[in-house]
Amino acid sequence: MYGSPVFSHGSRGKQDIMGTDIGAVVAGNSRISTLYERDRTCQSLGIALEEVSAGRAVMRMTVADTMVNGHGMAHGGFLFLLADAAFSYACNSYGPVTVAQAAQVTFLSPAAVGDELVAEADERTRSGRTGIYDVTVRHTSGRVVAEFRGHSVILAGKSHSGGE
Amino acid sequence: MYGSPVFSHGSRGKQDIMGTDIGAVVAGNSRISTLYERDRTCQSLGIALEEVSAGRAVMRMTVADTMVNGHGMAHGGFLFLLADAAFSYACNSYGPVTVAQAAQVTFLSPAAVGDELVAEADERTRSGRTGIYDVTVRHTSGRVVAEFRGHSVILAGKSHSGGE
Amino acid sequence: MYGSPVFSHGSRGKQDIMGTDIGAVVAGNSRISTLYERDRTCQSLGIALEEVSAGRAVMRMTVADTMVNGHGMAHGGFLFLLADAAFSYACNSYGPVTVAQAAQVTFLSPAAVGDELVAEADERTRSGRTGIYDVTVRHTSGRVVAEFRGHSVILAGKSHSGGE
Amino acid sequence: MYGSPVFSHGSRGKQDIMGTDIGAVVAGNSRISTLYERDRTCQSLGIALEEVSAGRAVMRMTVADTMVNGHGMAHGGFLFLLADAAFSYACNSYGPVTVAQAAQVTFLSPAAVGDELVAEADERTRSGRTGIYDVTVRHTSGRVVAEFRGHSVILAGKSHSGGE
Repeated sequence: MYGSPVFSHGSRGKQDIMGTDIGAVVAGNSRISTLYERDRTCQSLGIALEEVSAGRAVMRMTVADTMVNGHGMAHGGFLFLLADAAFSYACNSYGPVTVAQAAQVTFLSPAAVGDELVAEADERTRSGRTGIYDVTVRHTSGRVVAEFRGHSVILAGKSHSGGE
Repeated sequence: MYGSPVFSHGSRGKQDIMGTDIGAVVAGNSRISTLYERDRTCQSLGIALEEVSAGRAVMRMTVADTMVNGHGMAHGGFLFLLADAAFSYACNSYGPVTVAQAAQVTFLSPAAVGDELVAEADERTRSGRTGIYDVTVRHTSGRVVAEFRGHSVILAGKSHSGGE
Repeated sequence: MYGSPVFSHGSRGKQDIMGTDIGAVVAGNSRISTLYERDRTCQSLGIALEEVSAGRAVMRMTVADTMVNGHGMAHGGFLFLLADAAFSYACNSYGPVTVAQAAQVTFLSPAAVGDELVAEADERTRSGRTGIYDVTVRHTSGRVVAEFRGHSVILAGKSHSGGE
Repeated sequence: MYGSPVFSHGSRGKQDIMGTDIGAVVAGNSRISTLYERDRTCQSLGIALEEVSAGRAVMRMTVADTMVNGHGMAHGGFLFLLADAAFSYACNSYGPVTVAQAAQVTFLSPAAVGDELVAEADERTRSGRTGIYDVTVRHTSGRVVAEFRGHSVILAGKSHSGGE
């Protein structure tokens, strides 16, 4: 389960929305494509959405030189943000507008400028309007950089199709 | 303790490092000023450091239009990042190079583009090389946007003065 | 705020419910007294309720020889349980039936058989049906044993007075 | 991974230590058997150890009438304790004395007196002296009662064989 992820590498670069990659599988999902297109955070930071399926999402980010802290390491805030973004697409994969209500992150190893990081989000449990998603952020070498667990909640009376 | 914070507003704008505000009290602390000057994350996002004292820090950020998610709200990743930044300056206030090992955040109310947010970090406990810091992120109206708890650890054999 | 707690020691032993102490202030609150009287967990473990006021509770437990793990130290489960109990009385102090939805605990120092531990719960924030409470578990020497943060939620349509 | 667990039911009741069940596989591991035999918490609460292997453990507990809170539901402290116990055997499965440094729990559904609960702990990641373990507590009906994530640390210079 927690072994090396199999990403749909072949789909990278197939689609470009405002300059940032979106996987071919994702591009075929108009609701998610629209959500991603409006996602100014992921667009401006160059966070690519590689894969989305029911309860699951994979995103990729390269650590830019504007993402370091005063110690010269990748800022924990950006490591969290990448995990949180993957969590968000995983929990919004079902349709209803879903948001994070809480999250916990553990930083296991540092990342540096130029490192390419992949966040893989998987649903752990879901019942009623809430869900729990686990996200692992790995360096492309396979080294785990951070483990994240997010708690989601569906916003009452909201749906993507109806606008929000 | 958890009432309305008293910020040293008078100190804002007294100093500018690479275009971002640093409070007068902070500017007088050369170690922290250097840390902040090198902090490309806070510099590039316009996160101002308003106050730093032993175990405490206050930072301020305005939600930019590049900080929203696909639902049009401030991305939780940036709310976390602001809290994490305040946590970082609070736990580095003593001298030794200190990093986050884990953190938990709860999102209590949304923020929108243009909102000015203030993160106030206070030490809860500290023993040996580890510490726990609580951070509240508030809208300037006083509304709580997020509550954060961070766990810090001092890196062995590192000090700011010795370079890292 | 996080300095040495001032407990209402004078009230200890003034009241006994099923053999376990309840503080005088608490004994004057019939709703909380009933809740405590029915609390088989606290009764059977000898967890005393020393103080309850709006958003706050203090409880005391002595580590019994049945509370150790295989390493001979107080089981983390019982340290959590003590903190969780104090959290529960703090968040039920307002009236509506309130339960824990999530909690995070950090174990800072060990406890041994015979140690007397005090858990002090204080509300951090509350809005709508949810709240966040911080609990510190200390050895009577003042040493911090554990820090706990609990998230509460009011059960819809329930009140203590109406029975549950 | 998160589907219905396959427990080694056949091993239940094969061994009894101080009156509480230990699975046959576990009974063949003298170090773990000793740890469990000395575990006064699990012994006194009747928490059975059904399975232990590298990075994994399964435990079972029946909610006793002394385990309820003032609302008449199983006390969250005991739900946490069961998960924490499974976490403990999973992270001590390798040999070195390992303890919990922090944990997070989410309560998803209530449990009542007489309910039989199973906690299944699996390692998520491990590096150096620290590890992360995920534990799911389920009712025997399959319903998830709680999700738990624990952070472990190996105590320096300690080993079970050398006594602690």
